[in-house]
Amino acid sequence: MCGIVGYVGKRQAAPILVEGLSKLEYRGYDSAGVAIIDEAGNMNVSKCKGRLANLEGKLEQEPVQGLIGIGHTRWATHGEPSDRNSHPHTNEKETISVVHNGIIENYMHLREWLISKGYKFYSETDTEVIPNLVDYFYDGNLLDAVMKAVSKMEGSYALGVVSTYEPDKIVAVRKDSPLIVGVGAEENFIASDVPAILNQTRDVYYLNDKEFVVLTETGVEIYSAEGEKINKELHHVTWNADAAEKGGFEHFMIKEIHEQPKVIKDTMTSRIMPGKPVTLDDIKITKEQIENIDKVYIVACGTAYHAGIVGKYVIERLARIPVEVDIASEFRYRNPIINDRTLMIVVSQSGETADTLAALREARAQGARVIAVTNVVGSSVSREADDVLYTWAGPEIAVASTKAYTTQLITMYMIGLFFAQNRNTLTTEEIESIKNDMLTLPEKVEETLNHKEVLQKFAANTYMHKDMFFLGRGLDYAVAMEGSLKLKEISYIHSEAYAGGELKHGTIALIEPGTIVVALATQKSLYEKMVSNIKEVTTRGAKVLGLAVEGNTDVEKAVESAIYIPEVQEVLLPVLSVVPLQLLAYYMAIQKGCDVDKPRNLAKSVTVE
Amino acid sequence: MCGIVGYVGKRQAAPILVEGLSKLEYRGYDSAGVAIIDEAGNMNVSKCKGRLANLEGKLEQEPVQGLIGIGHTRWATHGEPSDRNSHPHTNEKETISVVHNGIIENYMHLREWLISKGYKFYSETDTEVIPNLVDYFYDGNLLDAVMKAVSKMEGSYALGVVSTYEPDKIVAVRKDSPLIVGVGAEENFIASDVPAILNQTRDVYYLNDKEFVVLTETGVEIYSAEGEKINKELHHVTWNADAAEKGGFEHFMIKEIHEQPKVIKDTMTSRIMPGKPVTLDDIKITKEQIENIDKVYIVACGTAYHAGIVGKYVIERLARIPVEVDIASEFRYRNPIINDRTLMIVVSQSGETADTLAALREARAQGARVIAVTNVVGSSVSREADDVLYTWAGPEIAVASTKAYTTQLITMYMIGLFFAQNRNTLTTEEIESIKNDMLTLPEKVEETLNHKEVLQKFAANTYMHKDMFFLGRGLDYAVAMEGSLKLKEISYIHSEAYAGGELKHGTIALIEPGTIVVALATQKSLYEKMVSNIKEVTTRGAKVLGLAVEGNTDVEKAVESAIYIPEVQEVLLPVLSVVPLQLLAYYMAIQKGCDVDKPRNLAKSVTVE
Repeated sequence: MCGIVGYVGKRQAAPILVEGLSKLEYRGYDSAGVAIIDEAGNMNVSKCKGRLANLEGKLEQEPVQGLIGIGHTRWATHGEPSDRNSHPHTNEKETISVVHNGIIENYMHLREWLISKGYKFYSETDTEVIPNLVDYFYDGNLLDAVMKAVSKMEGSYALGVVSTYEPDKIVAVRKDSPLIVGVGAEENFIASDVPAILNQTRDVYYLNDKEFVVLTETGVEIYSAEGEKINKELHHVTWNADAAEKGGFEHFMIKEIHEQPKVIKDTMTSRIMPGKPVTLDDIKITKEQIENIDKVYIVACGTAYHAGIVGKYVIERLARIPVEVDIASEFRYRNPIINDRTLMIVVSQSGETADTLAALREARAQGARVIAVTNVVGSSVSREADDVLYTWAGPEIAVASTKAYTTQLITMYMIGLFFAQNRNTLTTEEIESIKNDMLTLPEKVEETLNHKEVLQKFAANTYMHKDMFFLGRGLDYAVAMEGSLKLKEISYIHSEAYAGGELKHGTIALIEPGTIVVALATQKSLYEKMVSNIKEVTTRGAKVLGLAVEGNTDVEKAVESAIYIPEVQEVLLPVLSVVPLQLLAYYMAIQKGCDVDKPRNLAKSVTVE
Repeated sequence: MCGIVGYVGKRQAAPILVEGLSKLEYRGYDSAGVAIIDEAGNMNVSKCKGRLANLEGKLEQEPVQGLIGIGHTRWATHGEPSDRNSHPHTNEKETISVVHNGIIENYMHLREWLISKGYKFYSETDTEVIPNLVDYFYDGNLLDAVMKAVSKMEGSYALGVVSTYEPDKIVAVRKDSPLIVGVGAEENFIASDVPAILNQTRDVYYLNDKEFVVLTETGVEIYSAEGEKINKELHHVTWNADAAEKGGFEHFMIKEIHEQPKVIKDTMTSRIMPGKPVTLDDIKITKEQIENIDKVYIVACGTAYHAGIVGKYVIERLARIPVEVDIASEFRYRNPIINDRTLMIVVSQSGETADTLAALREARAQGARVIAVTNVVGSSVSREADDVLYTWAGPEIAVASTKAYTTQLITMYMIGLFFAQNRNTLTTEEIESIKNDMLTLPEKVEETLNHKEVLQKFAANTYMHKDMFFLGRGLDYAVAMEGSLKLKEISYIHSEAYAGGELKHGTIALIEPGTIVVALATQKSLYEKMVSNIKEVTTRGAKVLGLAVEGNTDVEKAVESAIYIPEVQEVLLPVLSVVPLQLLAYYMAIQKGCDVDKPRNLAKSVTVE
C-alpha cells in the first residue's frame, strides 16, 4: 500500500505535493519522493528513504521548481526501503516519470523483455518496468503510450505519469488500487484518497477500474480502456479532513476491518492462482529442505500467536509435519529442542517484536531455518530470517490488529499448501480445491461484513457486562482466543476463551444466570458436540451469541442471538469467523465510549521484552 | 456425569439406595431419585430437584417400600435440573424404570421414532427414550429387551433397569460410562463407583463395555453383547472407608491440601530411593522402546492438563524428548500426527474422564504406546493403557483437585528421570541430585502449609473482587494456570493466568487501579524479568501478591503482600508454589461463603464428553 498525489496548475507543485503526501502517510512511510517538470521542460526527481519529514528537509535544502508534478509515499512490498527503491521511478533518459500504488504481478517477465530490448534497471521494484514500458510505446502521444503499457501489465495499480515530451499533462489510471481526481480553478489533482487534496478542492471524480485520465491546467478528460471519452459525475465532498483520512469511517480499526477483503486478495496475488502451483517467490527454501523438516515451531506474541495456533492446525493437516506453537517470551527461556531439521516460522506484523526477534536468533544459532511472516518490508525479522513471506495488508494504524491477523492466516494456508505440494501430502485436486476456495474468501469476507445489525444489537444489550466468555472447539477455539483478545484490548471487558470440552473441567463454575457467552459452532465435524456445550451453559442461564455457517439455523434453538458466515471448506473458516468477533469487539468498545484506536496501556509494536 | 446405584435382596431398598447415593454425590447433585418395586409388584418412583437431602426429606414424608430398586443422582446435560428431568425415568405405563449415566447421542431420532409408534414423552432428557425402547422390545424377557434397546442406542451409558414384569431382577449394562457390580450375601448391588457400596460389601466385579448383568437376590449373571455367559474375576476391595472422612477439617478440600506431604511421600515410595535407579514397577516399557521415542503427547483435561504442562517442561528438560501437551477434547478431533515412535501419557485422577479415554483409544489405534497416570486402580484408563503409573493420593472427594495434582507432578518427575536414566541425557550425579531434592519435598510442602496468615489476610481484603489475574513465566506460568483454575472453580471469581511476557500484547489493557494480581516469581533464571512485569502492573495501579523463594525479599518492594516458599531446585518448585495458590482459592471461597467441596455446576469426574 502506498500513497499517490499529482498536481498541475499555476502554483509551485512541490509544497502542494508534500502537503498532500502528509495526509497519506497512513498509507506508508518507508520513503517518499516527487518528480516535477520545471518551466524549462526538465524532469527533476527528489526522493529519499524514511518518513516524509526527510523529503521535506531535502526539498528545503535543494528546492525543486515547477508547476506540474507527481508525489509518492511508499509502503515497501518489492524491494527493501531505500533511496533507490523510492518512487517516483523514471526511465534511463529521465523523460518519463511514474508513481505507482499496487503490485505488478508479471513484472519479472516484463523486466526481462525490456532488458532484451536494451532497457536498464536500477531498482528492485516492480514499478520500474512502467516508465520503461511507456517509453517503449511512446510514439508522440502520452495517453496512447500509457494505454499500451497498461495493456501489458497484470496486477493492481494506480498510476500517475508525467513526461517531458508533453510537459503540460498528467496521465493517470487505476485498477484495484484507489485513485481519485480533484478539480480546482485552473488547477487539477490526482490522489490515492480524498484527504490528500481536501485543502485544495472538494470537487472530485471517483475513477473506476481501467478509466484513464488526462489532466492539464485547464481540464480533466476521462477515457475508457477503448479510448472513448467518458462523462462522469463530479462529486462534492462534505466530510471533514479527519474523517477523510479514515476513509469516511469513524476509527482506523473499523476502516481496517473493512479493508480485509482487499488485503486478503492482495496477499494471495501472484501466489495463489488456479491451475498453477503455489509460488512463494520470496521463499528460497528448497524441496529437499522441506522434505527434511521434522518439526515446525511457530513463535509469536499476541494476535500473531493466535494466527500461529490456526497455523498449527493448517500445517499439520495439510503437510502432516508436527507443529508446536509457542509464545515468544516463553519459548526463549524454555531451552527448546532444536536441530537442523527444525523449521521455525516467526509471525510479527511490525517485524520488530523484541521477544519474537530474540526467539528467531536463538533458533538460528541452534541451526534451525527461519521463515518470517511480517507486514513490514525491511523490518528486523525480515532481515534476519532465512526466508520472508510478506503479508500485504498495508499499514495497520489501530493498535488492535485485524487485517494483519487475517492476512497472517492467509500466509499459514499458503505455507501449508506450499509444503503439501513439496511433500506430496495432498493430491493436486485437493490443493486445487483449497486454492479455489481461498480465492472466494475476499468476497465472502465482504458478505460477512454486511451482517452488522445482529452484532450492534447484541453489543447494545450486553456492553455493560464486566465479563464474557468465548467457546469453541478445534479451529473455532483458536478463533475464540483471538475474539477474546480483541474484546479485552479495546473494551476492557474481562473475556476468556475456553475449549468447549474443557468447560466441565472447572470453568463452567463461572456460568450463572445472565452470563454472556459467544459460542462458535462453524466446524461441521464438531457441530453436534458444540451444540451440547451451548446447552450446558444455557441450562445454567447463560445468554449465548451463536456463530455458525449459513444454513445451520437450528443453532437458534439453543441461543439468544445467532450470526452466520458463508460456507467455505472447514480449514478456511477462521478467515470468516473472526470477522464478526472483530466487529463485536468494536461495537462493544464504542458502546462503552472507549478510545478504540489507542486502548489504554497498549502500544502498536512491542519492541521491548 | 451422574451416579447410579441398584439393590436387590432381602432388605428395604430405599435406605440402602440413599446411603449409596450419598457416596456418589460427588458425581452430580442437580437432582436425585429412586424407583422401587413393592411387594405387590407396583413401581414406585420418588424423585426431586436439588441435593440428595431433598430426596431424603421426601422419602421421610412419603416412604417407599420394596426390596428391589434403582437410584440416581444427576448432573444435568440434556434438560435443566428439574423434578421432571430427574431420574429414574419410566415408560408411560410405569412398568419399566431406568437410571442412566452418559449421553444418548441419537436420542432425538429415537424419540421421534417412538412417538410415531404412539409413545409419549414428558421430559427433555435423552434418557427417557430408554424405558420406552425397552417397553417396545419387551416380549417376555427383560434382558433380551434391554439388549435390543441398547443395540439401537449411540453414545455412552451405564444403565440400571427394573420392570414390574420381572420384579425380582435388575438388568444393567455399560458403555463408556463406569459401572461396577457388588456381590453380597443374598443381596447384590450395582453402582457407578465402589464407595457407594463399601458399607454393604467389598466384593466387586468391574464391568467392561457392553457387558450385560442380571442381578437377583441370589445371583449375578454376566453376558456378552452376543448373549453368551461370561465368567469374571471377583475383586476384593481393601481400601479403608475412613479415608473418606474429613478427619477434623472443615472441608474435604482443606483436608486434602494438608494430606499432600503424606501422599507425595507415598507416591515416591519404592520408586525414588537414594543411590538406586528410579524404578517404576508398574511400567513395562523397555529401554529400547524408550530410546526409540521421538515424540511424547501428554493428554488430559482440567487440572490434570495443568500437571501435563509442567510435565512438558520436565520431560523436555530432563530427557530431551519433544513433548506436546494437549487438552483431550481438542486432541481427539485434531487428527494428530502419531506413529509407533509416539508415546502418549494420559493423566486422569478418576481414570474415567471420557475425552481422555477416547484420546487414549485413538492413539493406541494408531500405534502409539500409552502410559496412564491415574489415581484409581482398575479405572478404565488403567485397564486400557499399555502401562500404568498410579498416583497414590487416596480418594479425592473435594471436586477441586489438590492432592491429585501434586502427586501427578511427582509422576512427571519420575517419568522424566526414568527416561533420562534410559536415554543417558543426565549424569548419575544429576539424577541423584534431583532425587535427593524430591525426597525433601514432603517436608517443604509441610513448611509451606504453615504460612497461612498472609494468605488469609490477603483473601479477607480482596475476596469481594470479581476478577483476578495470575502472572508467571516458564514453570511459574504453568502453576499460575492451575492457581487460576482453583480460584475459579470454588470461589467463582473470574481469574485468568497470563505469561508475563504476553501482558504487553493485549491483556495489560485490563489492568486498572485496584486490580488484583498474583505474581509468581520463583524461577531464578526469570526472576528479573518477572519483577519487571510486576512493575508494569503496579505502575498501572494493580495490587499484587508476590510469590517468591525464601530470601528473595526484594520482591516486597514491588508488591502489596509477599509469600515465600522454601528453596529447592528450579524444576521442582511447582510442587511447592502451587500450595499457597490452593490455600488462597480456599480462603477466598470461605470468605465468600461458597460451598467449597461441591462448587456449583461441577462434578468430580467427567465421564461424558
